[in-house]
Amino acid sequence: MNKFVIIPNLTKDKKLETTKLIVDWLEKNDCKICLPAQIANYINKQQYSCSESDMYNNADCAIVLGGDGTILNAARNLIKYDLPILGVNLGNLGFLAEVEKKDALSTLSKIIKGDYYVQRRMMLDVKRLINDKEDLIGVALNDIVIARTSISRMMKYSIYVNDGHVNNYSADGIIVSTPTGSTAYNLSAGGPILDPKNEMMVITPICPHTLMSRSIVLSKNDVVKISLENNRKSWNDDTMITIDGQESFNIDQKDKIIISNSYKSAKLITCNKNGFYTILKKKLGNC
Amino acid sequence: MNKFVIIPNLTKDKKLETTKLIVDWLEKNDCKICLPAQIANYINKQQYSCSESDMYNNADCAIVLGGDGTILNAARNLIKYDLPILGVNLGNLGFLAEVEKKDALSTLSKIIKGDYYVQRRMMLDVKRLINDKEDLIGVALNDIVIARTSISRMMKYSIYVNDGHVNNYSADGIIVSTPTGSTAYNLSAGGPILDPKNEMMVITPICPHTLMSRSIVLSKNDVVKISLENNRKSWNDDTMITIDGQESFNIDQKDKIIISNSYKSAKLITCNKNGFYTILKKKLGNC
Amino acid sequence: MNKFVIIPNLTKDKKLETTKLIVDWLEKNDCKICLPAQIANYINKQQYSCSESDMYNNADCAIVLGGDGTILNAARNLIKYDLPILGVNLGNLGFLAEVEKKDALSTLSKIIKGDYYVQRRMMLDVKRLINDKEDLIGVALNDIVIARTSISRMMKYSIYVNDGHVNNYSADGIIVSTPTGSTAYNLSAGGPILDPKNEMMVITPICPHTLMSRSIVLSKNDVVKISLENNRKSWNDDTMITIDGQESFNIDQKDKIIISNSYKSAKLITCNKNGFYTILKKKLGNC
Amino acid sequence: MNKFVIIPNLTKDKKLETTKLIVDWLEKNDCKICLPAQIANYINKQQYSCSESDMYNNADCAIVLGGDGTILNAARNLIKYDLPILGVNLGNLGFLAEVEKKDALSTLSKIIKGDYYVQRRMMLDVKRLINDKEDLIGVALNDIVIARTSISRMMKYSIYVNDGHVNNYSADGIIVSTPTGSTAYNLSAGGPILDPKNEMMVITPICPHTLMSRSIVLSKNDVVKISLENNRKSWNDDTMITIDGQESFNIDQKDKIIISNSYKSAKLITCNKNGFYTILKKKLGNC
Repeated sequence: MNKFVIIPNLTKDKKLETTKLIVDWLEKNDCKICLPAQIANYINKQQYSCSESDMYNNADCAIVLGGDGTILNAARNLIKYDLPILGVNLGNLGFLAEVEKKDALSTLSKIIKGDYYVQRRMMLDVKRLINDKEDLIGVALNDIVIARTSISRMMKYSIYVNDGHVNNYSADGIIVSTPTGSTAYNLSAGGPILDPKNEMMVITPICPHTLMSRSIVLSKNDVVKISLENNRKSWNDDTMITIDGQESFNIDQKDKIIISNSYKSAKLITCNKNGFYTILKKKLGNC
Repeated sequence: MNKFVIIPNLTKDKKLETTKLIVDWLEKNDCKICLPAQIANYINKQQYSCSESDMYNNADCAIVLGGDGTILNAARNLIKYDLPILGVNLGNLGFLAEVEKKDALSTLSKIIKGDYYVQRRMMLDVKRLINDKEDLIGVALNDIVIARTSISRMMKYSIYVNDGHVNNYSADGIIVSTPTGSTAYNLSAGGPILDPKNEMMVITPICPHTLMSRSIVLSKNDVVKISLENNRKSWNDDTMITIDGQESFNIDQKDKIIISNSYKSAKLITCNKNGFYTILKKKLGNC
Repeated sequence: MNKFVIIPNLTKDKKLETTKLIVDWLEKNDCKICLPAQIANYINKQQYSCSESDMYNNADCAIVLGGDGTILNAARNLIKYDLPILGVNLGNLGFLAEVEKKDALSTLSKIIKGDYYVQRRMMLDVKRLINDKEDLIGVALNDIVIARTSISRMMKYSIYVNDGHVNNYSADGIIVSTPTGSTAYNLSAGGPILDPKNEMMVITPICPHTLMSRSIVLSKNDVVKISLENNRKSWNDDTMITIDGQESFNIDQKDKIIISNSYKSAKLITCNKNGFYTILKKKLGNC
Repeated sequence: MNKFVIIPNLTKDKKLETTKLIVDWLEKNDCKICLPAQIANYINKQQYSCSESDMYNNADCAIVLGGDGTILNAARNLIKYDLPILGVNLGNLGFLAEVEKKDALSTLSKIIKGDYYVQRRMMLDVKRLINDKEDLIGVALNDIVIARTSISRMMKYSIYVNDGHVNNYSADGIIVSTPTGSTAYNLSAGGPILDPKNEMMVITPICPHTLMSRSIVLSKNDVVKISLENNRKSWNDDTMITIDGQESFNIDQKDKIIISNSYKSAKLITCNKNGFYTILKKKLGNC
């Protein structure tokens, strides 16, 4: 790899100092560099300014500087370019960034020598089913959440897997998570951890009114359908579907939501095969 | 007891049929009856129409017809009158209603003979602390919930008990519940069941980001303080405090919220000392 | 299918009445029948008495009469014959039996017409690692549990996945479960439900001392290693490994336990593709 | 306070070095010292050797050196003497020890000046009910656990509170815990934290087979009865009742176990009113 595009989070990379550091290093190491125009101007490296399509079509790797949110956002934006991402963490300890800021340059020197892995991370397609037509809403790397935004949070929904009825739920909402997202909202809501290299999904109800509700883990081939049709009376047009905690859409009570494995996946660069459990131990504590 | 006020939920008591049934029975049994003017007109019993203060000051008992929500609402409204409540259930199985519709008259005949208990249920005062002055927001029979209404639900807060720092939390919100409310939202969020005849309170975080968060049970003498002061950046004016899931107030990030045992309590009429566990078994299932 | 072996649970099939009923039906329908000698004698059908190897090598299907325990036991015993099992439930509602007693004959008439599916269920090999040599202890259809039998239950262990260290645990024990076993002990210990048609496994600690412990779901290709090496002082020779809750073995504190997908699997006959969720709803209740 | 008895854990206080340090300090500060004969001999301070009754009847305070287990044991042993305990921690971070070893002397200098609190900790009486006669088995400061010691752990039992039936359970066992014990086994089994200065108790099932089982918090006035009568078939004489994880007794399936607030309580010396939450934060982590 020697063609890099850099995507910094402007709030997290103060004065773009880390961006500059990496640009300098890449220059010294004879790498090709692409920067969004705005960033190139800001650090006075206009020679590296690229158009979006140039940037992503020609690069070998996107270096994303920020926290887990920045990387989630980049992963969804880069889907169509199939570009591997190296996450450099500028926030709190996260699950998606491969390296801490202080180790960014030493990791880059491994990467340009070819000493790295590309880990594929399963993504989920979320579609709205209207009059038997499926309409793609988006693709999630972490999770898809259906919940209400009003104070009265309780909603009713039915879950189907491959058209077989699983159960009816009364809950604050529902999370359908990828392995990557299993350590995010799914974990807060009581769900299990899924090793992120695997291809599975997990359905976790949020604050279920019925105590007997548990997370259900499905294979990548299963198709989940969520139907909201029992909420007629209390429907308030405040039910939202949220992708990766970042993109939200109103849904109608007549909508059925279809969630399934995407044929696209995110590609994360890592130098450390067991990195996930190392982060997990740090996050969760080690007894 | 022979002076009764009747408070029906107009949506649940269709055509006020149960109200009429009870009025007829009370008439036959020489009881005094008070009805809100609107109800008296509707069922054409204007002779029982009372003003609110007359109604509540002179009655021995309020017969509340509806579900748990109707009774919660009545209990808060009746606080200043210290009037015992008989809940007649017109909804799904609930925890607060003493009798099902079909058993209402047989229960009333016990009650007019004095064959009943009055169970005191602890309530919680919730106050806003502004510039060291405490301002009473309301009184809860079930619970006080602090949460956000936006899609991004995560909030940070600190809990203090009697001014000692308990912990910082990152969570979707927090519930402070009475024993009565312990089987409501608290249970959905993973909290324990508190026998409702007791005087205690329980703090339960909603979807805590930190796995080590558990419910904490306090005595009635403990004072809980919740401080939101760490949310500066992400503050969106969408944080709400909700009482019994029914009354909501915006709170400011500089507010501190004080929750403590109220010197007032709700009085529920029951004929069955172990009724709570009987309902619990029905609700939760019996193995 | 028309060659059947029948394996009844003698305590559950009182006087072998269900066995007789099925034998009669199979006779009338021109099926070949094999019975263990003891059973053939008991019901006076010596003509169907078979040796074990004859029985299992020549049959198309084993009809197992009993509860989940009976079927688990049969599944492990039949591993080497690769024989599909039809479970007829004579106990409480179970997850493994395909039909209730009253529906046994109507299900058999579907089966002899070819109207059925064979569902493969993943099994787990459990091996002891002694001086770098792996020694197969057994094969589990439900789960492998490591725990102590004394009153002082707490034990320490380390988990590795594919030789990467996951975490150290202090807990009452550990469960490694197949999808089939996920609704058994794993569920009691707080683990998630895994759709049994999938190939995954789940590690769930039993009463972990460390609150941050959660179930971890792995793919069928992952290899789990459990090491007990930190228990020197408190070791009491009371640590056991148990397969499907039925077979137990003492383990030594120097042992390392290796758990991985077995190349063998159980084959369960079903006429109902969504049967699992139907049973789950009955077991867990439907809101 | 100036009369101290010292109770060291011989395995944790290596060569009794901390004991010697404290004895020296108490001598210099003109305190009266009592030591068990064995300890007095070991450190060659025979002049402080006391008989058990002398020791406990005349002292103002027992200094207990060890971990939580040592203090639990001492608390039960000292019940009849009503002697306050100062716990000096020689183990891992614990909930019962007031001070770490390094702070023992500075804490003692506060205590001899009267600068301390005595915190009463509720204890639980556990009785066996045989032919309607109650037989006291023991008194617990942490918890009472009923469980089986065999590999097949599942047992059935019924819980009654004040003779009202709560529910039937299928589980690995049951914990009835004091507030002090709520952070021990109760927490591992999913129970809530009870502020230890309160007088309450909590019932927590261990790995309940029925998902709808939750912890139930009772007041100090409630009497819990546990009945095992449904286990006829599978009874194996392996069911044990364990007090504070330290004392075990076999129980018979015809036994009913009665658990109630003891009129005795443990007295723990503390210099820090909010010490509990400080320890909790250290133990559980702070986000």
